[in-house]
Amino acid sequence: MKLATLRSTSPDGRLIVVSRDLRKAVDAAAIAPSLRQAIEQWDLVAPALQALSDRLNTGDASGAFDFDTTACAAPLPRCFQWCDASAFLNHGRLMERAFKTEPIPDFDTIPVMYQGASDDFLGPHDDVPLPDESLGIDFEGEFGVVVDHVEMGASPLAALERVLLLVQINDWSLRALGPREMKSGFGFLQAKPSTSFAPVAITPDELGADWRGGRVRLDLHVQWNDAWFGQPNGGEMNFDFGELIAHAARTRRLGAGTIIGSGTVSNANRAAGSACIAERRVIEMLDQGDIKTAFMRFGDRVRMEARNAEGIAPFGVVDQRVVRAGL
Amino acid sequence: MKLATLRSTSPDGRLIVVSRDLRKAVDAAAIAPSLRQAIEQWDLVAPALQALSDRLNTGDASGAFDFDTTACAAPLPRCFQWCDASAFLNHGRLMERAFKTEPIPDFDTIPVMYQGASDDFLGPHDDVPLPDESLGIDFEGEFGVVVDHVEMGASPLAALERVLLLVQINDWSLRALGPREMKSGFGFLQAKPSTSFAPVAITPDELGADWRGGRVRLDLHVQWNDAWFGQPNGGEMNFDFGELIAHAARTRRLGAGTIIGSGTVSNANRAAGSACIAERRVIEMLDQGDIKTAFMRFGDRVRMEARNAEGIAPFGVVDQRVVRAGL
Repeated sequence: MKLATLRSTSPDGRLIVVSRDLRKAVDAAAIAPSLRQAIEQWDLVAPALQALSDRLNTGDASGAFDFDTTACAAPLPRCFQWCDASAFLNHGRLMERAFKTEPIPDFDTIPVMYQGASDDFLGPHDDVPLPDESLGIDFEGEFGVVVDHVEMGASPLAALERVLLLVQINDWSLRALGPREMKSGFGFLQAKPSTSFAPVAITPDELGADWRGGRVRLDLHVQWNDAWFGQPNGGEMNFDFGELIAHAARTRRLGAGTIIGSGTVSNANRAAGSACIAERRVIEMLDQGDIKTAFMRFGDRVRMEARNAEGIAPFGVVDQRVVRAGL
Repeated sequence: MKLATLRSTSPDGRLIVVSRDLRKAVDAAAIAPSLRQAIEQWDLVAPALQALSDRLNTGDASGAFDFDTTACAAPLPRCFQWCDASAFLNHGRLMERAFKTEPIPDFDTIPVMYQGASDDFLGPHDDVPLPDESLGIDFEGEFGVVVDHVEMGASPLAALERVLLLVQINDWSLRALGPREMKSGFGFLQAKPSTSFAPVAITPDELGADWRGGRVRLDLHVQWNDAWFGQPNGGEMNFDFGELIAHAARTRRLGAGTIIGSGTVSNANRAAGSACIAERRVIEMLDQGDIKTAFMRFGDRVRMEARNAEGIAPFGVVDQRVVRAGL
């Protein structure tokens, strides 16, 4: 099934079920007021949500209305935990060269992952307020999973079974602030402003064979100001989501509703383009001898949409504009 | 006023008001079901909580009962954001020597801060389950603030005015995992298992002159297995809490209920002892030529209690035992 969240007076928004073709939706707040609360009692509410989804998809849901993604918040406008990996080693190795940082120890065998801010996620068409163009404004196209609670020490296989929903993410990054925070050893904080989400969270069965081996095997189409920027495929992820969840749960249990991200989708084939500017810049430096692409300016837009072989976008579109904060 | 949270069927627990002397408490769930929800509508509910607190302190609250900290969860058993600084430079400089890491750039002028996990905090007497004694199990005694929502770019002064509550924290750390995660540049993740809290969160006025200049000016008494370990004073913090909150809010707004931590309390005067084992170990190495103190073993306890000049502990006591996970 497909779920989304309408902005409402609650900071958690209001839960709706969305039809498979993203054309229709129906209020689900009678089953659970918000997606956050649905996830916290998933076994209890999932059957009713599935039944409502079935009725919506057969045209039998009373109260169905046209699905309008401009009314959507992030599927989870906030949650209690957001951990983001860098599971595409092609991206990570390029970024080491971009940031001129030391190679990360055991990068091929142990995932790297940072703890992100989860108190204030942006919706698919929300403006992205940032304080200063000089901070190196960049996007990062990613996939993620929303998990049920996970026991400490769960195996990758057990962890993968805890996946409830898949999501599509734009992990905004401020590149001028990243290297200092990496060198501090304390990791990203100011370098990672509020993260954005495509409107629709989906159960893994919605992807069919495109969810396989703990990976979202879709091309993530990225456009910057209407120009093609890349379409790397999520199948090339070097650690699967089970391994990433297990990494996060090695020394602590994870609360229900924890989101685990893949890190920037990236393919070894350069014809696939990139899902972030920093990666394109280092490729320009390596292949052409100097950097040609600048970071984003206020007023710029970026659009991301994962599509399957039939051209269908199961998560919908995240399409946002960067603006100066406080205006 | 003083607030605490009883364990309940809700993951957020049940809100109670606690008397100034920590002897009595009264249920406050009719005002707000949980402290998390109270903080999200603070202006609306604070007057009623204050009135209940006043009645409790004059012996006029109906339904008052004996305050039992063993029934307490953390004041916020979970929240949407937890950011922890390293604002005592004495500690930070010693830790650089302990971890043999490079000096952090601008360490004296820009706070360092990591994003922590906020989905699963431990209560003051909860056992602390960890997978393996060999991970270098350590405690870190700290103070923290719970803030109302904070605008992006708030000044330190404006940020300080957003402080709603003060808390006392044990930020559990796994020292064997820290250096690798620091070298990755992505910061602490496995090295920071669930954080623990003293039972009582207090409004700043409860401290009188011991809350001054954005610092909690109390000695933090630390005992490890009943032996004195340290009593450093929180007044020596090199950045005040306003500066720490503003640092976190430089590139994003902060949601109501965000907790900002001071990092390990640490004093230049070595007679004050330490609030974590790693710091004592590096002092032993520097002053005595080799490390004498090992990290914690399963079954060990640590007790922390901030006390004022009259010996009163406004936050109560956090006293926990480390156990093997899964037993």
